[in-house]
Amino acid sequence: MPADAALASTDTARRWVYPFAQAPAGDKALLGGKGAGLAAMTAAGLPVPPGFTITTEACVAYQDAGHHFPEGLWDQAEAALATVEAAAGRRFGDADDPLLLSVRSGAAVSMPGMMDTVLNLGLTDETVAALAHQTGDERFAYDAYRRFVAMFGEIVMGVEAERFERLMRRAKDQTEGGRDTDLSVDQLKEIVAQSKRVIEGQTRQHFPDRPREQLRQAVAAVFDSWDNDRAVHYRRVHAIPDDIGTGVTVQAMVFGNKGWDSGTGVAFTRDPSTGEKGLYGEYLLNAQGEDVVAGTRTPRPIAEMAGDLPETFDEFRALADRLEATYGDVQDIEFTIEQGTLWLLQTRTAKRSGAAAVRVAVEMVAEGVIDERTAVARVDPDALEALLHPAVDDDADAVLLAEGLPASPGAACGRVAFTSDDAETRAADGEPVVLVRQQTSPEDFHGMVAAVAVVTAEGGMTSHAAVVARGMGTPCVAGASDLRIDPAQGRLHADGHTLVAGDWVTVDGATGRVLLGQVPTKDPDLGDDFHTLMRWADDVRTMGVRANADTGEDAAKARQFGAEGIGLCRTEHMFFGDERLAAMRQMILADGAGEREAALRTLLPFQRADFDALFRAMDGLPVTVRLLDPPLHEFLPDLLELTGRIAETKLALRQAATLDEMDRLLDDSAASRALLRQVEKLHEQNPMLGLRGCRLGMLYPEITRMQVRALFEAAADGVEDGVGVFPEVMVPLVSTAAEIETQAALVREVADAVLAERGVELAYLVGTMIELPRAALRAGDIAATAEFFSFGTNDLTQTTFGLSRDDAGRFLSAYVERGVLPADPFQTLDVDGVGELVRLGTERGRAARAGLKVGICGEHGGDPASVAFFHGVGLDYVSCSPFRVPVARLAAARAALAAEGA
Amino acid sequence: MPADAALASTDTARRWVYPFAQAPAGDKALLGGKGAGLAAMTAAGLPVPPGFTITTEACVAYQDAGHHFPEGLWDQAEAALATVEAAAGRRFGDADDPLLLSVRSGAAVSMPGMMDTVLNLGLTDETVAALAHQTGDERFAYDAYRRFVAMFGEIVMGVEAERFERLMRRAKDQTEGGRDTDLSVDQLKEIVAQSKRVIEGQTRQHFPDRPREQLRQAVAAVFDSWDNDRAVHYRRVHAIPDDIGTGVTVQAMVFGNKGWDSGTGVAFTRDPSTGEKGLYGEYLLNAQGEDVVAGTRTPRPIAEMAGDLPETFDEFRALADRLEATYGDVQDIEFTIEQGTLWLLQTRTAKRSGAAAVRVAVEMVAEGVIDERTAVARVDPDALEALLHPAVDDDADAVLLAEGLPASPGAACGRVAFTSDDAETRAADGEPVVLVRQQTSPEDFHGMVAAVAVVTAEGGMTSHAAVVARGMGTPCVAGASDLRIDPAQGRLHADGHTLVAGDWVTVDGATGRVLLGQVPTKDPDLGDDFHTLMRWADDVRTMGVRANADTGEDAAKARQFGAEGIGLCRTEHMFFGDERLAAMRQMILADGAGEREAALRTLLPFQRADFDALFRAMDGLPVTVRLLDPPLHEFLPDLLELTGRIAETKLALRQAATLDEMDRLLDDSAASRALLRQVEKLHEQNPMLGLRGCRLGMLYPEITRMQVRALFEAAADGVEDGVGVFPEVMVPLVSTAAEIETQAALVREVADAVLAERGVELAYLVGTMIELPRAALRAGDIAATAEFFSFGTNDLTQTTFGLSRDDAGRFLSAYVERGVLPADPFQTLDVDGVGELVRLGTERGRAARAGLKVGICGEHGGDPASVAFFHGVGLDYVSCSPFRVPVARLAAARAALAAEGA
Repeated sequence: MPADAALASTDTARRWVYPFAQAPAGDKALLGGKGAGLAAMTAAGLPVPPGFTITTEACVAYQDAGHHFPEGLWDQAEAALATVEAAAGRRFGDADDPLLLSVRSGAAVSMPGMMDTVLNLGLTDETVAALAHQTGDERFAYDAYRRFVAMFGEIVMGVEAERFERLMRRAKDQTEGGRDTDLSVDQLKEIVAQSKRVIEGQTRQHFPDRPREQLRQAVAAVFDSWDNDRAVHYRRVHAIPDDIGTGVTVQAMVFGNKGWDSGTGVAFTRDPSTGEKGLYGEYLLNAQGEDVVAGTRTPRPIAEMAGDLPETFDEFRALADRLEATYGDVQDIEFTIEQGTLWLLQTRTAKRSGAAAVRVAVEMVAEGVIDERTAVARVDPDALEALLHPAVDDDADAVLLAEGLPASPGAACGRVAFTSDDAETRAADGEPVVLVRQQTSPEDFHGMVAAVAVVTAEGGMTSHAAVVARGMGTPCVAGASDLRIDPAQGRLHADGHTLVAGDWVTVDGATGRVLLGQVPTKDPDLGDDFHTLMRWADDVRTMGVRANADTGEDAAKARQFGAEGIGLCRTEHMFFGDERLAAMRQMILADGAGEREAALRTLLPFQRADFDALFRAMDGLPVTVRLLDPPLHEFLPDLLELTGRIAETKLALRQAATLDEMDRLLDDSAASRALLRQVEKLHEQNPMLGLRGCRLGMLYPEITRMQVRALFEAAADGVEDGVGVFPEVMVPLVSTAAEIETQAALVREVADAVLAERGVELAYLVGTMIELPRAALRAGDIAATAEFFSFGTNDLTQTTFGLSRDDAGRFLSAYVERGVLPADPFQTLDVDGVGELVRLGTERGRAARAGLKVGICGEHGGDPASVAFFHGVGLDYVSCSPFRVPVARLAAARAALAAEGA
Repeated sequence: MPADAALASTDTARRWVYPFAQAPAGDKALLGGKGAGLAAMTAAGLPVPPGFTITTEACVAYQDAGHHFPEGLWDQAEAALATVEAAAGRRFGDADDPLLLSVRSGAAVSMPGMMDTVLNLGLTDETVAALAHQTGDERFAYDAYRRFVAMFGEIVMGVEAERFERLMRRAKDQTEGGRDTDLSVDQLKEIVAQSKRVIEGQTRQHFPDRPREQLRQAVAAVFDSWDNDRAVHYRRVHAIPDDIGTGVTVQAMVFGNKGWDSGTGVAFTRDPSTGEKGLYGEYLLNAQGEDVVAGTRTPRPIAEMAGDLPETFDEFRALADRLEATYGDVQDIEFTIEQGTLWLLQTRTAKRSGAAAVRVAVEMVAEGVIDERTAVARVDPDALEALLHPAVDDDADAVLLAEGLPASPGAACGRVAFTSDDAETRAADGEPVVLVRQQTSPEDFHGMVAAVAVVTAEGGMTSHAAVVARGMGTPCVAGASDLRIDPAQGRLHADGHTLVAGDWVTVDGATGRVLLGQVPTKDPDLGDDFHTLMRWADDVRTMGVRANADTGEDAAKARQFGAEGIGLCRTEHMFFGDERLAAMRQMILADGAGEREAALRTLLPFQRADFDALFRAMDGLPVTVRLLDPPLHEFLPDLLELTGRIAETKLALRQAATLDEMDRLLDDSAASRALLRQVEKLHEQNPMLGLRGCRLGMLYPEITRMQVRALFEAAADGVEDGVGVFPEVMVPLVSTAAEIETQAALVREVADAVLAERGVELAYLVGTMIELPRAALRAGDIAATAEFFSFGTNDLTQTTFGLSRDDAGRFLSAYVERGVLPADPFQTLDVDGVGELVRLGTERGRAARAGLKVGICGEHGGDPASVAFFHGVGLDYVSCSPFRVPVARLAAARAALAAEGA
């Protein structure tokens, strides 16, 4: 049957095969993603090597027929092949100038678990000689043949790749240099022969020496791969139906190494690092893509092609412009020139740096290529954060001490301090300090404030150090487990170096590296494009963005980054100053409410001053203040430390030289023991599930009273000075309606009393965190009292999963690696579980109180994927650390756009 | 208008008032509960003092009319009063023989927050003299008047009760004895006068000296009380509508102190302690109820009334029989005889002991009074457990050492042991031992097994000691905080006594008392009635009852109590024997999977033997085995203890006398430090939320393999011996579908391998605990793999509330006391929060897998209220500690009956 007739006979038999030029260009379901893309490029008149696609329907038919090709498929394939031969000007299997093919799988949805590509299909003992002749490079031809046999043997015939690699290793061992390139043509020929014997030994089948048989087997292998274990598992995990099948794309090979009028290269339509417009990339004449990758020859800048091949370069430049215009975005183009003919192997949207993404998006709007909404949708929010922080400028000569997790971005140099007290002292002397700890606890807060960067040897992305550092915008590397820290000796060992306190290190929080000495850093330069893009994002988004900030300073920074209020002020950090901690301990150890109130009176002015700074920084914007949340023993010395201290005093007592010394030691001992008794009394097996949050205020209402009084005295001061004050008092860890009823009544009582005393009129809200599963379930009852909700997704994730952030590090990474969890649920919200509670809580809360304001103030508020989910649930705002505010603004805008599109 | 005409005029005005004899007897909505009850008693011809009820509709009309009585109400009330006067043979306000009234509120639903009773209404300066004359007791009359003025002043006129009490106190201070009874008639008269002045001073209103005005004000006060704060709050909390109103019941007062033909008493129709049939109670002639309560005269057994007032006694006996027959249950009857006339003041269902409840229920079926289903519904399941345990027989001379929580019922005497090792040693010598600890941990398991009773100074009803002791049926008093235990010295101080190890104590777990010395105890005697009742319960219930048991011995006990399988075998307790713990520690400290597997091989035979005993004890019944659940560090020495040991070695080193000793100490020190490093590595901030449950099996699959192998080797042994083995393997702490998929695959792989090795055919199930909120939410995914669910409501409660059982003691009791929580959610399931997750999890699980078997194995499985909820959700079974099995069987039956009735 003649070619055209076979292809045209679609009304009698079904049509299984489409040459690129005849395929329905957008039909991914029929052609698979790859086939549809190539059809579209061909239809756009781009110089794509000719080829054809066997449809996904053919695959389904093949499966249904018990692994037999459906009727008509091979006639249609032959006909399509004929069109390829015609377009390429060569024939498949030709003994003089053979057409070689690539064969690829391609389902409608990308499936990494499936069959790989087979290149150079059509090589046989006969055609390889022709290829050698054509290219004038026998080595190249036999190397290609060797690779093809191994690739085919592995992918189509199922022989382990290792067996072919072993042949190569053995041959290389016989050469002097021992590299691939040291192999002689004869050796390559021998490897081909050996490879074929291996295949025959393993499979009891001959390696097919007829090109058409190779093609048939390769297509069958692609179809069969649809049902291999990896693919089936992948489909199950990603909920892809089993009956959609894969397409097969068969395409003519082109070669860039057929002489000095041939070549190959990769180019971007704009600089992927800066975003500057203009071709950017590199190329090599008389070379294949592999040569560029192998690094055996140094590629040259793409601009130089204008000298080598002026016409082709002009053609390529025009093509690049057309591609960018067609796809409306920066393109990353792979091309090959075969004897003066330019072929496009692939074009795809170019990956780019954050800075480039912003510049390209804004400039493309100016050029009229895209509109503002598209620009907003183009920039990956996560890429923004790096722009806001200093970065390591040039680390060519830097010595790497250790690597850990990139826990908080930015870069800084400073002198090492091993304790928070030392950090504070050095900082007070004007030194930049890097705080290096095994791990941090709330007691390290003052040291972290003093430090320009923080490094811990233990802990994950949501450890105390990481969360606090991100909140303050301080660079942090967490879990740098190669550091051996000896704080007692004031020493640090890492990778053969020993550092003492005061030595210089540079911390690169964006990459998680700790570098030796002072490595230059460069400050961020946001520029106009950034602000333009953020303005567009703000126009688009419907969800508000607030910041989590505990100090006036952080609040000011947040406001500068566009925060529309404070979504979470954690009042406990306010208690960690030296003088404050003493009063706090006095409060905790107090015997009865009277003593406790006296200690609280000492704390009140501190709190009031903190709130005052916060209100002034956020003039005109709402400020959500959370009442005391952590278990009280966080403010006390560590149980172990105290036990150790007592043991040491005991030891010292035995060696006391004088009676005076003995007296002093006995006093010490008695004081330590008294403290120990209190610490033991407050000790909890699971402090996360213990006496904290509003439970503190329920048992010790005087704490709530003090905090609310401090807050409203500060608010009254603000109002009197003309500051726009909008306090929102937030009760933490509520699980029952009675808790919020009791605490809200207490808050209102004290607040109204203060306002009455001061004669100030002020509207304020009293609301609650929703951070326990029960609170989400009973949101209806709770909203009867609470005037707003803020989801505390950190704690909600902990309790929903029964998983402590502090302890999860030991297995959470293993869980993510093995796919037990798709992501760390403390970084990206678990939409299926925790997300359902967020949705339920919001619905039930709003059903009970129409228009209830609902926000979220967990770490997830700064995670783009989570922000998109929150937009979908209809939250009023997200609140995140100041440096994530631009990220959240952009993410919220993109979520709004995506929802409109859906 | 004549009386009858006013009452009959219901077709022109609405009817607001009903004399008891004319009221629609069952209509609670119209008459309120109290009015409906009195109408029913009157209709049954019982001698109830006459009275009338003002309807709830009148209350609503009063409220709607802005606190004005509706038209016709007072005409109808006057008419009703006339019928009361006629029946009583006295007139209201009569100067010779006045009728006195009681006025009570009574809504359709019981509302403790509302107005109390006003007694003796109708007393004035005029009528009080008549009462004095009538009773021949001027003191009584003026004391009644004094009480009435104060009661009316407080309840109707709103004066604080404290003001009247103050008058009393002042007057009593002037007497010699200082008691109420020392007041003279003149003093009482003076108090009445003073009380009236107080009222006038406080309210600017005269105390009403006309009986009709008193009545009018009292009725208005009842209506007004419907809207007082307490009542409104109570209705909100209990979801009672605001618009149903309260009724008012007005009833003639009768007096038992009008001479020696008068009297008063209380009697039961059967003995409330043993259930024996026959009148049981006491009475006093020429006395009021108050005299019985005040204890000034000693009441006499009811049987003696036959001699004093033979006719009245016969009348009363007949009445009692009739009441029991009418109400079909044992009655608790209050009566008064006024000048030879018998009046019934109240009759209600009698409270009774567990033993009495069972006997009465079974005997009443035999008597044909009730049917078997009613008998089942009659017995409070909680009362059963006391029947199963020994009890303190006679504690008249017992010295109370300390009181704590009744953590596990039963009584036992034994010698004190302060450590589990000592307990084990003493028990091995044949001594009964009471283990006394500050608190217990899993390391105390062997000591608890050895002990006849357990006492802790710390911990609540769900502390380790309490849970484990209940599971074993060992008496336990927890949280006996007055005990000062010094284990190092082997001493215990309590209430002035000092005990050393080996001293005798008696523990009463049913009351929470620790008694000094050997107090006699009596063994339980279940008797036929118990078994009869349980058989009836089993006929009625639809939900299965299993037991939580870890050993063959416990399983046998559970089976004896009627368990239909094991719902939870906790495999971790199996690792706490001396030899086992060593291997367990070796396993935990192992360096890599190889070493770990070697240690596991040592543990395997122990586990197999345990499982073997379990399967044989439960021959023919299913046995659910949970894989290892607790964090591994529970098996390691305590961090603090270890730190202390190291410090002590350090101290000893300084004083070492010989080089040999030094060497030994240095070795000790090195070993302790190595162990410390491991313990520190495994230390978790929140072990409840850490590396435990299936997370262990995910990280160390070799542990799962060992446990499953041991289990199925034991199963195969059983099958070969003809034992009916039905293993159900349970994966703990699942939160994602991938976890159960991975672990279930591992279980099946090992199980099938063992069965194949042994050539044994055996059906088994693999399922999971649902004990995390996320597991309940994602139950659909999880049920795709899990073949059964068992709700672990202990952990589910912890995570849903964010509340650790170990730490909650410090505030949970305060929460329950203040009504923040209706009950301890670890004892009675929180239906609104945790319950919703149980319901959701069950629905979603069964939607994904039709007929999925769903049970529950938390502490709630033995709590009747929770069992009723589980029945409603449609669970297949509950599982509880062996001694709660009868409780659960009865509770399940009652739930089934209640559901049928609903």
